[in-house]
Amino acid sequence: MNPTACILIIGNEILSGRTQDANIQFLAQNLGKLGINLQEIRVIPDQEALIVHTVNETRKKFSHVITTGGIGPTHDDITAPSIAKAFGVPWEIHEESFKILEAHFRPGEFNTPRQRMATLPRGAIPIRNPISAAPGFSMDNVHVLAGVPEIMRAMFLELAPHLSKGAPIVSRTWYAFGMSEGQIAEKLEEIQSAFPTLDIGSYPFKLQDQRKGVALVVKGHNENQVKNAAEQICQLIADFGLTPHEGEPTAKEASKI
Amino acid sequence: MNPTACILIIGNEILSGRTQDANIQFLAQNLGKLGINLQEIRVIPDQEALIVHTVNETRKKFSHVITTGGIGPTHDDITAPSIAKAFGVPWEIHEESFKILEAHFRPGEFNTPRQRMATLPRGAIPIRNPISAAPGFSMDNVHVLAGVPEIMRAMFLELAPHLSKGAPIVSRTWYAFGMSEGQIAEKLEEIQSAFPTLDIGSYPFKLQDQRKGVALVVKGHNENQVKNAAEQICQLIADFGLTPHEGEPTAKEASKI
Repeated sequence: MNPTACILIIGNEILSGRTQDANIQFLAQNLGKLGINLQEIRVIPDQEALIVHTVNETRKKFSHVITTGGIGPTHDDITAPSIAKAFGVPWEIHEESFKILEAHFRPGEFNTPRQRMATLPRGAIPIRNPISAAPGFSMDNVHVLAGVPEIMRAMFLELAPHLSKGAPIVSRTWYAFGMSEGQIAEKLEEIQSAFPTLDIGSYPFKLQDQRKGVALVVKGHNENQVKNAAEQICQLIADFGLTPHEGEPTAKEASKI
Repeated sequence: MNPTACILIIGNEILSGRTQDANIQFLAQNLGKLGINLQEIRVIPDQEALIVHTVNETRKKFSHVITTGGIGPTHDDITAPSIAKAFGVPWEIHEESFKILEAHFRPGEFNTPRQRMATLPRGAIPIRNPISAAPGFSMDNVHVLAGVPEIMRAMFLELAPHLSKGAPIVSRTWYAFGMSEGQIAEKLEEIQSAFPTLDIGSYPFKLQDQRKGVALVVKGHNENQVKNAAEQICQLIADFGLTPHEGEPTAKEASKI
Protein backbone atom coordinates (compact mmCIF):
# COMPACT_ATOMS: atom_id res chain seq x y z
CA MET A 1 0.00 0.00 0.00
CA ASN A 2 1.32 3.42 -0.94
CA PRO A 3 1.52 6.09 1.75
CA THR A 4 -1.33 8.62 1.70
CA ALA A 5 -1.34 12.41 1.98
CA CYS A 6 -3.64 15.29 2.76
CA ILE A 7 -2.88 18.92 1.92
CA LEU A 8 -4.10 21.70 4.21
CA ILE A 9 -4.09 25.13 2.57
CA ILE A 10 -4.25 27.56 5.49
CA GLY A 11 -5.30 31.08 4.60
CA ASN A 12 -8.22 33.46 4.23
CA GLU A 13 -7.01 34.67 0.83
CA ILE A 14 -8.14 31.54 -1.04
CA LEU A 15 -11.49 31.43 0.77
CA SER A 16 -12.21 35.09 -0.02
CA GLY A 17 -11.34 34.54 -3.69
CA ARG A 18 -8.64 37.22 -3.54
CA THR A 19 -5.95 34.76 -4.58
CA GLN A 20 -6.03 32.00 -7.19
CA ASP A 21 -4.45 28.88 -5.69
CA ALA A 22 -1.01 28.26 -7.15
CA ASN A 23 0.18 25.45 -4.89
CA ILE A 24 -2.19 22.50 -5.21
CA GLN A 25 -1.20 21.32 -8.67
CA PHE A 26 2.54 21.43 -7.93
CA LEU A 27 2.10 19.43 -4.72
CA ALA A 28 -0.34 16.97 -6.31
CA GLN A 29 1.97 16.23 -9.22
CA ASN A 30 5.07 15.89 -7.06
CA LEU A 31 3.40 13.67 -4.47
CA GLY A 32 2.23 11.44 -7.35
CA LYS A 33 5.81 11.17 -8.63
CA LEU A 34 6.89 9.99 -5.16
CA GLY A 35 4.18 7.31 -5.13
CA ILE A 36 2.32 9.14 -2.36
CA ASN A 37 -1.44 8.90 -2.80
CA LEU A 38 -2.97 12.38 -2.33
CA GLN A 39 -6.43 11.62 -0.95
CA GLU A 40 -7.77 14.95 0.25
CA ILE A 41 -7.16 18.69 0.15
CA ARG A 42 -8.71 21.14 2.58
CA VAL A 43 -8.64 24.92 2.53
CA ILE A 44 -9.28 26.42 5.96
CA PRO A 45 -9.09 29.95 7.40
CA ASP A 46 -6.46 31.44 9.73
CA GLN A 47 -8.35 30.42 12.89
CA GLU A 48 -6.50 28.63 15.64
CA ALA A 49 -9.28 26.30 16.79
CA LEU A 50 -9.99 25.17 13.23
CA ILE A 51 -6.31 24.59 12.45
CA VAL A 52 -5.83 22.57 15.65
CA HIS A 53 -8.93 20.47 14.99
CA THR A 54 -8.16 19.84 11.32
CA VAL A 55 -4.49 18.98 11.91
CA ASN A 56 -5.38 16.54 14.66
CA GLU A 57 -8.10 14.91 12.56
CA THR A 58 -5.99 14.53 9.42
CA ARG A 59 -2.65 13.53 10.95
CA LYS A 60 -4.31 10.40 12.32
CA LYS A 61 -5.98 9.55 9.00
CA PHE A 62 -3.13 10.08 6.51
CA SER A 63 0.54 9.05 6.30
CA HIS A 64 1.52 12.67 5.56
CA VAL A 65 -0.17 16.02 6.16
CA ILE A 66 1.33 18.93 4.24
CA THR A 67 0.26 22.44 5.21
CA THR A 68 0.92 25.65 3.29
CA GLY A 69 0.63 29.21 4.53
CA GLY A 70 0.63 31.18 7.75
CA ILE A 71 4.31 31.02 8.76
CA GLY A 72 5.31 34.61 8.08
CA PRO A 73 5.96 37.44 10.58
CA THR A 74 2.51 39.10 10.74
CA HIS A 75 -0.33 38.73 13.26
CA ASP A 76 -2.36 36.60 10.82
CA ASP A 77 0.45 34.02 10.56
CA ILE A 78 -0.71 31.56 13.20
CA THR A 79 0.11 28.16 11.72
CA ALA A 80 3.18 27.43 13.88
CA PRO A 81 1.60 28.21 17.29
CA SER A 82 -1.54 26.33 16.21
CA ILE A 83 0.50 23.24 15.32
CA ALA A 84 2.23 23.47 18.72
CA LYS A 85 -1.20 23.52 20.34
CA ALA A 86 -2.38 20.56 18.21
CA PHE A 87 0.60 18.53 19.49
CA GLY A 88 0.35 19.87 23.05
CA VAL A 89 3.91 21.23 23.10
CA PRO A 90 5.32 24.71 23.77
CA TRP A 91 5.91 27.15 20.91
CA GLU A 92 9.44 28.37 21.54
CA ILE A 93 12.55 29.87 19.95
CA HIS A 94 14.35 27.27 17.83
CA GLU A 95 18.02 28.15 18.43
CA GLU A 96 19.45 26.94 15.12
CA SER A 97 16.74 28.72 13.09
CA PHE A 98 17.18 31.85 15.22
CA LYS A 99 20.88 31.96 14.30
CA ILE A 100 20.17 31.42 10.60
CA LEU A 101 17.63 34.26 10.55
CA GLU A 102 19.81 36.55 12.68
CA ALA A 103 22.60 36.14 10.13
CA HIS A 104 20.15 36.65 7.24
CA PHE A 105 18.95 40.11 8.29
CA ARG A 106 21.03 43.26 8.53
CA PRO A 107 22.00 44.29 12.08
CA GLY A 108 19.01 45.78 13.89
CA GLU A 109 16.47 44.40 11.39
CA PHE A 110 15.87 41.02 13.06
CA ASN A 111 12.99 42.48 15.04
CA THR A 112 10.34 40.79 17.22
CA PRO A 113 7.92 39.93 14.36
CA ARG A 114 10.77 38.35 12.40
CA GLN A 115 11.89 36.37 15.46
CA ARG A 116 8.40 34.86 15.34
CA MET A 117 9.59 33.01 12.21
CA ALA A 118 12.28 31.27 14.31
CA THR A 119 9.68 30.19 16.87
CA LEU A 120 8.66 26.57 16.33
CA PRO A 121 6.77 23.87 18.19
CA ARG A 122 9.15 22.05 20.57
CA GLY A 123 10.55 18.98 18.80
CA ALA A 124 10.01 20.35 15.28
CA ILE A 125 12.58 19.51 12.61
CA PRO A 126 13.14 22.63 10.49
CA ILE A 127 12.79 22.53 6.69
CA ARG A 128 15.41 24.72 5.04
CA ASN A 129 14.22 27.78 3.11
CA PRO A 130 16.88 28.57 0.50
CA ILE A 131 15.01 31.69 -0.66
CA SER A 132 14.18 33.81 2.38
CA ALA A 133 15.76 31.85 5.27
CA ALA A 134 12.63 31.54 7.48
CA PRO A 135 12.15 27.78 7.83
CA GLY A 136 9.23 25.43 7.43
CA PHE A 137 9.18 22.45 9.77
CA SER A 138 8.01 18.87 10.31
CA MET A 139 6.29 17.65 13.48
CA ASP A 140 5.99 13.88 13.12
CA ASN A 141 3.98 13.40 9.90
CA VAL A 142 2.84 17.05 9.64
CA HIS A 143 4.98 19.09 7.26
CA VAL A 144 4.55 22.85 7.40
CA LEU A 145 5.48 24.84 4.29
CA ALA A 146 5.23 28.51 3.29
CA GLY A 147 2.27 29.78 1.25
CA VAL A 148 4.26 31.88 -1.24
CA PRO A 149 4.52 29.47 -4.21
CA GLU A 150 8.21 30.04 -4.95
CA ILE A 151 9.18 29.37 -1.33
CA MET A 152 6.71 26.48 -0.94
CA ARG A 153 8.28 24.73 -3.93
CA ALA A 154 11.80 25.15 -2.63
CA MET A 155 10.77 23.82 0.77
CA PHE A 156 8.99 20.83 -0.77
CA LEU A 157 12.16 19.87 -2.63
CA GLU A 158 14.04 20.02 0.71
CA LEU A 159 11.37 17.89 2.36
CA ALA A 160 10.87 15.27 -0.38
CA PRO A 161 13.92 13.06 0.43
CA HIS A 162 12.60 12.63 3.99
CA LEU A 163 9.07 11.47 3.06
CA SER A 164 8.12 7.79 3.04
CA LYS A 165 7.42 6.87 -0.57
CA GLY A 166 5.47 4.30 -2.55
CA ALA A 167 5.37 2.74 -5.98
CA PRO A 168 5.06 5.50 -8.59
CA ILE A 169 1.74 5.73 -10.40
CA VAL A 170 1.92 5.09 -14.14
CA SER A 171 -0.46 7.13 -16.28
CA ARG A 172 -1.43 7.28 -19.97
CA THR A 173 -3.75 9.88 -21.49
CA TRP A 174 -5.54 9.87 -24.84
CA TYR A 175 -7.28 12.92 -26.29
CA ALA A 176 -10.21 12.49 -28.67
CA PHE A 177 -11.13 15.74 -30.37
CA GLY A 178 -14.76 16.04 -31.41
CA MET A 179 -15.92 13.17 -29.20
CA SER A 180 -18.45 13.55 -26.36
CA GLU A 181 -18.54 11.49 -23.18
CA GLY A 182 -22.02 10.13 -23.77
CA GLN A 183 -20.85 8.41 -26.97
CA ILE A 184 -18.23 6.25 -25.30
CA ALA A 185 -19.49 5.88 -21.74
CA GLU A 186 -20.69 2.29 -22.11
CA LYS A 187 -17.57 0.98 -23.84
CA LEU A 188 -15.38 2.87 -21.39
CA GLU A 189 -17.13 1.26 -18.46
CA GLU A 190 -16.48 -2.15 -20.04
CA ILE A 191 -12.76 -1.35 -20.15
CA GLN A 192 -12.86 -0.16 -16.53
CA SER A 193 -14.58 -3.44 -15.55
CA ALA A 194 -11.90 -5.44 -17.34
CA PHE A 195 -9.17 -3.63 -15.35
CA PRO A 196 -10.65 -3.25 -11.85
CA THR A 197 -7.34 -2.27 -10.21
CA LEU A 198 -6.81 0.66 -12.60
CA ASP A 199 -8.40 4.09 -12.31
CA ILE A 200 -9.92 5.15 -15.63
CA GLY A 201 -11.21 8.71 -15.85
CA SER A 202 -13.05 10.65 -18.52
CA TYR A 203 -12.67 14.46 -18.70
CA PRO A 204 -14.41 16.70 -21.21
CA PHE A 205 -12.23 19.61 -22.33
CA LYS A 206 -12.41 22.77 -24.38
CA LEU A 207 -9.21 24.37 -25.60
CA GLN A 208 -8.52 28.07 -26.01
CA ASP A 209 -9.06 27.69 -29.76
CA GLN A 210 -12.55 26.30 -28.95
CA ARG A 211 -11.77 22.73 -30.02
CA LYS A 212 -13.62 20.33 -27.74
CA GLY A 213 -13.29 16.68 -26.89
CA VAL A 214 -12.70 14.14 -24.17
CA ALA A 215 -9.48 13.21 -22.38
CA LEU A 216 -9.34 9.59 -21.26
CA VAL A 217 -6.87 8.83 -18.49
CA VAL A 218 -5.65 5.43 -17.26
CA LYS A 219 -3.70 5.27 -14.00
CA GLY A 220 -2.33 2.50 -11.89
CA HIS A 221 0.71 0.78 -10.43
CA ASN A 222 0.95 -2.08 -12.93
CA GLU A 223 2.70 -0.73 -16.01
CA ASN A 224 1.67 -3.65 -18.18
CA GLN A 225 -2.00 -3.36 -17.27
CA VAL A 226 -1.92 0.40 -17.86
CA LYS A 227 -0.40 -0.28 -21.30
CA ASN A 228 -3.08 -2.84 -22.18
CA ALA A 229 -5.95 -0.63 -21.02
CA ALA A 230 -4.45 2.34 -22.88
CA GLU A 231 -4.38 0.27 -26.07
CA GLN A 232 -8.06 -0.59 -25.67
CA ILE A 233 -8.91 3.09 -25.12
CA CYS A 234 -6.92 4.03 -28.19
CA GLN A 235 -8.88 1.42 -30.19
CA LEU A 236 -12.17 2.71 -28.75
CA ILE A 237 -11.43 6.19 -30.10
CA ALA A 238 -10.32 4.80 -33.47
CA ASP A 239 -13.53 2.74 -33.69
CA PHE A 240 -15.42 6.04 -33.69
CA GLY A 241 -13.46 7.13 -36.77
CA LEU A 242 -11.45 9.63 -34.74
CA THR A 243 -7.69 9.96 -34.39
CA PRO A 244 -6.47 9.35 -30.82
CA HIS A 245 -3.79 11.82 -29.66
CA GLU A 246 -1.55 10.65 -26.87
CA GLY A 247 -0.07 12.91 -24.19
CA GLU A 248 -0.96 16.37 -23.05
CA PRO A 249 -1.79 19.29 -25.31
CA THR A 250 0.77 22.09 -25.01
CA ALA A 251 1.07 23.67 -21.58
CA LYS A 252 -0.72 26.77 -22.85
CA GLU A 253 -3.67 24.76 -24.06
CA ALA A 254 -3.72 22.48 -21.04
CA SER A 255 -4.17 25.40 -18.66
CA LYS A 256 -7.62 25.90 -20.14
CA ILE A 257 -8.77 22.32 -19.94
CA MET B 1 -24.76 36.18 11.43
CA ASN B 2 -24.09 35.57 7.74
CA PRO B 3 -24.81 32.13 6.30
CA THR B 4 -21.79 29.90 5.87
CA ALA B 5 -20.66 27.69 3.00
CA CYS B 6 -18.37 24.80 2.24
CA ILE B 7 -17.26 23.82 -1.27
CA LEU B 8 -16.65 20.15 -2.11
CA ILE B 9 -14.61 19.64 -5.27
CA ILE B 10 -15.28 16.02 -6.24
CA GLY B 11 -12.80 14.52 -8.68
CA ASN B 12 -9.57 12.60 -9.03
CA GLU B 13 -8.22 15.03 -11.62
CA ILE B 14 -7.37 17.75 -9.10
CA LEU B 15 -5.84 15.27 -6.63
CA SER B 16 -3.63 13.74 -9.33
CA GLY B 17 -2.46 17.18 -10.43
CA ARG B 18 -3.71 16.57 -13.97
CA THR B 19 -6.01 19.58 -13.84
CA GLN B 20 -5.43 23.04 -12.40
CA ASP B 21 -8.49 24.02 -10.39
CA ALA B 22 -10.54 26.65 -12.22
CA ASN B 23 -13.64 26.75 -10.02
CA ILE B 24 -12.63 27.75 -6.50
CA GLN B 25 -11.88 31.42 -7.11
CA PHE B 26 -15.12 32.04 -9.04
CA LEU B 27 -17.23 30.41 -6.33
CA ALA B 28 -15.31 32.12 -3.50
CA GLN B 29 -15.72 35.57 -5.03
CA ASN B 30 -19.38 35.10 -5.86
CA LEU B 31 -20.28 33.68 -2.45
CA GLY B 32 -18.55 36.70 -0.90
CA LYS B 33 -20.66 39.05 -3.02
CA LEU B 34 -23.80 37.32 -1.70
CA GLY B 35 -22.65 37.78 1.92
CA ILE B 36 -22.14 34.02 2.30
CA ASN B 37 -19.11 33.24 4.43
CA LEU B 38 -17.05 30.53 2.68
CA GLN B 39 -15.42 28.69 5.59
CA GLU B 40 -13.94 25.57 4.06
CA ILE B 41 -13.09 23.89 0.77
CA ARG B 42 -12.43 20.18 0.41
CA VAL B 43 -11.18 18.28 -2.60
CA ILE B 44 -12.08 14.58 -2.46
CA PRO B 45 -11.82 11.66 -4.91
CA ASP B 46 -14.63 9.95 -6.84
CA GLN B 47 -15.26 7.37 -4.10
CA GLU B 48 -18.79 6.77 -2.93
CA ALA B 49 -18.09 6.15 0.76
CA LEU B 50 -15.96 9.30 1.00
CA ILE B 51 -18.54 11.45 -0.79
CA VAL B 52 -21.36 10.16 1.45
CA HIS B 53 -19.33 10.74 4.62
CA THR B 54 -18.11 14.21 3.62
CA VAL B 55 -21.52 15.41 2.43
CA ASN B 56 -23.19 14.24 5.64
CA GLU B 57 -20.51 15.83 7.81
CA THR B 58 -20.50 19.19 6.05
CA ARG B 59 -24.22 19.64 5.42
CA LYS B 60 -24.76 19.66 9.20
CA LYS B 61 -21.94 22.15 9.82
CA PHE B 62 -22.56 24.77 7.12
CA SER B 63 -25.59 26.69 5.82
CA HIS B 64 -24.73 25.72 2.24
CA VAL B 65 -22.65 22.92 0.73
CA ILE B 66 -21.75 23.40 -2.93
CA THR B 67 -20.30 20.45 -4.81
CA THR B 68 -18.65 20.48 -8.24
CA GLY B 69 -17.91 17.55 -10.51
CA GLY B 70 -19.03 13.99 -11.12
CA ILE B 71 -22.44 14.52 -12.74
CA GLY B 72 -21.61 13.50 -16.32
CA PRO B 73 -22.54 10.28 -18.17
CA THR B 74 -19.45 8.12 -17.51
CA HIS B 75 -18.78 5.40 -14.94
CA ASP B 76 -16.60 7.75 -12.84
CA ASP B 77 -19.49 10.25 -12.45
CA ILE B 78 -20.88 9.07 -9.13
CA THR B 79 -21.83 12.29 -7.35
CA ALA B 80 -25.62 12.02 -7.84
CA PRO B 81 -26.04 8.40 -6.60
CA SER B 82 -23.67 9.19 -3.71
CA ILE B 83 -25.78 12.18 -2.66
CA ALA B 84 -28.89 9.99 -2.84
CA LYS B 85 -27.14 7.54 -0.52
CA ALA B 86 -26.09 10.35 1.84
CA PHE B 87 -29.73 11.43 2.15
CA GLY B 88 -31.05 7.84 2.27
CA VAL B 89 -33.35 8.30 -0.75
CA PRO B 90 -33.62 6.43 -4.07
CA TRP B 91 -31.67 7.58 -7.12
CA GLU B 92 -34.29 7.64 -9.85
CA ILE B 93 -35.29 9.12 -13.19
CA HIS B 94 -36.36 12.76 -12.79
CA GLU B 95 -39.21 13.05 -15.33
CA GLU B 96 -38.86 16.76 -16.12
CA SER B 97 -35.08 16.51 -16.59
CA PHE B 98 -35.54 13.35 -18.67
CA LYS B 99 -37.83 15.24 -21.05
CA ILE B 100 -35.42 18.19 -21.32
CA LEU B 101 -32.49 15.89 -22.14
CA GLU B 102 -34.56 13.75 -24.51
CA ALA B 103 -35.41 16.90 -26.47
CA HIS B 104 -31.79 18.10 -26.34
CA PHE B 105 -30.28 15.05 -28.09
CA ARG B 106 -30.94 13.89 -31.63
CA PRO B 107 -33.30 10.91 -31.97
CA GLY B 108 -31.51 7.71 -30.94
CA GLU B 109 -28.65 9.55 -29.18
CA PHE B 110 -30.26 9.80 -25.75
CA ASN B 111 -28.66 6.51 -24.71
CA THR B 112 -28.41 4.81 -21.31
CA PRO B 113 -25.28 6.69 -20.11
CA ARG B 114 -26.91 10.02 -21.00
CA GLN B 115 -30.11 9.00 -19.20
CA ARG B 116 -27.89 8.73 -16.12
CA MET B 117 -27.69 12.55 -16.23
CA ALA B 118 -31.48 12.72 -15.76
CA THR B 119 -31.29 10.41 -12.75
CA LEU B 120 -31.43 12.40 -9.49
CA PRO B 121 -31.94 11.70 -5.80
CA ARG B 122 -35.67 11.59 -5.01
CA GLY B 123 -36.79 15.06 -3.90
CA ALA B 124 -33.97 16.93 -5.67
CA ILE B 125 -34.74 20.32 -7.20
CA PRO B 126 -32.97 20.54 -10.57
CA ILE B 127 -30.63 23.44 -11.37
CA ARG B 128 -30.98 24.45 -15.02
CA ASN B 129 -27.97 23.97 -17.30
CA PRO B 130 -28.30 26.49 -20.13
CA ILE B 131 -25.18 25.15 -21.87
CA SER B 132 -25.50 21.38 -22.20
CA ALA B 133 -28.95 20.67 -20.72
CA ALA B 134 -27.90 18.05 -18.11
CA PRO B 135 -29.02 19.59 -14.81
CA GLY B 136 -27.35 20.16 -11.46
CA PHE B 137 -29.61 19.87 -8.42
CA SER B 138 -30.21 20.92 -4.83
CA MET B 139 -31.06 18.51 -2.01
CA ASP B 140 -31.89 20.67 1.00
CA ASN B 141 -28.75 22.75 1.56
CA VAL B 142 -26.52 20.67 -0.74
CA HIS B 143 -26.15 22.18 -4.20
CA VAL B 144 -24.64 19.96 -6.87
CA LEU B 145 -22.96 21.66 -9.83
CA ALA B 146 -20.99 20.44 -12.85
CA GLY B 147 -17.18 20.37 -12.79
CA VAL B 148 -16.61 21.90 -16.24
CA PRO B 149 -15.96 25.57 -15.36
CA GLU B 150 -18.18 27.09 -18.05
CA ILE B 151 -21.16 24.92 -17.02
CA MET B 152 -20.46 25.30 -13.28
CA ARG B 153 -20.59 29.10 -13.64
CA ALA B 154 -23.86 29.04 -15.56
CA MET B 155 -25.39 26.72 -12.95
CA PHE B 156 -24.19 28.90 -10.08
CA LEU B 157 -25.91 31.92 -11.62
CA GLU B 158 -29.13 29.86 -11.82
CA LEU B 159 -28.72 28.78 -8.19
CA ALA B 160 -27.71 32.13 -6.65
CA PRO B 161 -31.22 33.67 -6.37
CA HIS B 162 -32.32 30.67 -4.27
CA LEU B 163 -29.50 30.82 -1.69
CA SER B 164 -30.00 32.45 1.70
CA LYS B 165 -27.78 35.52 1.77
CA GLY B 166 -26.07 37.78 4.29
CA ALA B 167 -24.61 41.25 4.58
CA PRO B 168 -21.99 41.72 1.87
CA ILE B 169 -18.39 41.90 3.01
CA VAL B 170 -16.67 45.23 2.32
CA SER B 171 -13.01 45.05 1.44
CA ARG B 172 -10.17 47.52 0.77
CA THR B 173 -6.69 46.56 -0.41
CA TRP B 174 -3.48 48.59 -0.38
CA TYR B 175 -0.33 47.56 -2.21
CA ALA B 176 3.08 48.65 -0.95
CA PHE B 177 5.82 47.97 -3.48
CA GLY B 178 9.26 47.41 -2.00
CA MET B 179 7.97 46.78 1.51
CA SER B 180 8.47 43.52 3.43
CA GLU B 181 6.07 42.07 5.99
CA GLY B 182 8.60 42.08 8.82
CA GLN B 183 8.91 45.87 8.61
CA ILE B 184 5.26 46.57 9.33
CA ALA B 185 4.13 43.56 11.33
CA GLU B 186 4.06 45.33 14.71
CA LYS B 187 2.17 48.41 13.52
CA LEU B 188 -0.22 46.25 11.52
CA GLU B 189 -1.03 44.21 14.60
CA GLU B 190 -1.80 47.44 16.46
CA ILE B 191 -4.31 48.35 13.75
CA GLN B 192 -5.84 44.86 13.91
CA SER B 193 -6.16 45.22 17.71
CA ALA B 194 -7.89 48.58 17.28
CA PHE B 195 -10.45 47.00 14.93
CA PRO B 196 -11.14 43.56 16.44
CA THR B 197 -14.26 42.89 14.33
CA LEU B 198 -12.35 43.39 11.06
CA ASP B 199 -10.16 40.86 9.33
CA ILE B 200 -6.80 42.39 8.39
CA GLY B 201 -4.52 40.26 6.23
CA SER B 202 -0.98 40.72 4.96
CA TYR B 203 0.11 38.99 1.72
CA PRO B 204 3.58 39.19 0.20
CA PHE B 205 3.50 39.29 -3.59
CA LYS B 206 5.85 39.17 -6.55
CA LEU B 207 4.62 40.38 -9.93
CA GLN B 208 5.58 38.99 -13.32
CA ASP B 209 7.92 41.94 -13.80
CA GLN B 210 9.69 40.86 -10.56
CA ARG B 211 8.46 43.83 -8.49
CA LYS B 212 7.81 42.66 -4.94
CA GLY B 213 5.88 44.01 -2.02
CA VAL B 214 3.05 43.43 0.42
CA ALA B 215 -0.70 43.61 -0.11
CA LEU B 216 -2.65 44.67 2.97
CA VAL B 217 -6.32 43.71 2.99
CA VAL B 218 -9.08 44.94 5.33
CA LYS B 219 -12.41 43.13 5.33
CA GLY B 220 -15.55 43.39 7.36
CA HIS B 221 -19.25 44.17 7.42
CA ASN B 222 -19.02 47.70 8.82
CA GLU B 223 -18.20 49.99 5.92
CA ASN B 224 -17.20 52.88 8.15
CA GLN B 225 -14.79 50.79 10.22
CA VAL B 226 -13.27 49.32 7.07
CA LYS B 227 -12.76 52.85 5.77
CA ASN B 228 -11.08 53.99 9.00
CA ALA B 229 -8.79 50.95 9.18
CA ALA B 230 -7.91 51.36 5.50
CA GLU B 231 -6.88 54.97 6.18
CA GLN B 232 -4.58 53.87 8.98
CA ILE B 233 -3.01 51.23 6.74
CA CYS B 234 -2.52 53.80 4.00
CA GLN B 235 -0.79 56.07 6.56
CA LEU B 236 1.35 53.15 7.79
CA ILE B 237 2.71 52.64 4.27
CA ALA B 238 3.26 56.38 3.78
CA ASP B 239 5.15 56.55 7.10
CA PHE B 240 7.67 54.18 5.56
CA GLY B 241 8.27 56.68 2.77
CA LEU B 242 6.44 54.45 0.26
CA THR B 243 3.50 55.27 -1.98
CA PRO B 244 0.38 53.23 -1.16
CA HIS B 245 -1.48 51.93 -4.24
CA GLU B 246 -5.12 51.09 -3.77
CA GLY B 247 -6.96 48.31 -5.59
CA GLU B 248 -5.77 45.32 -7.50
CA PRO B 249 -2.90 45.28 -9.96
CA THR B 250 -4.07 44.42 -13.49
CA ALA B 251 -5.65 41.00 -13.89
CA LYS B 252 -2.57 39.76 -15.68
CA GLU B 253 -0.32 40.80 -12.83
CA ALA B 254 -2.71 39.60 -10.15
CA SER B 255 -2.70 36.07 -11.50
CA LYS B 256 0.93 35.82 -10.44
CA ILE B 257 0.48 37.17 -6.93
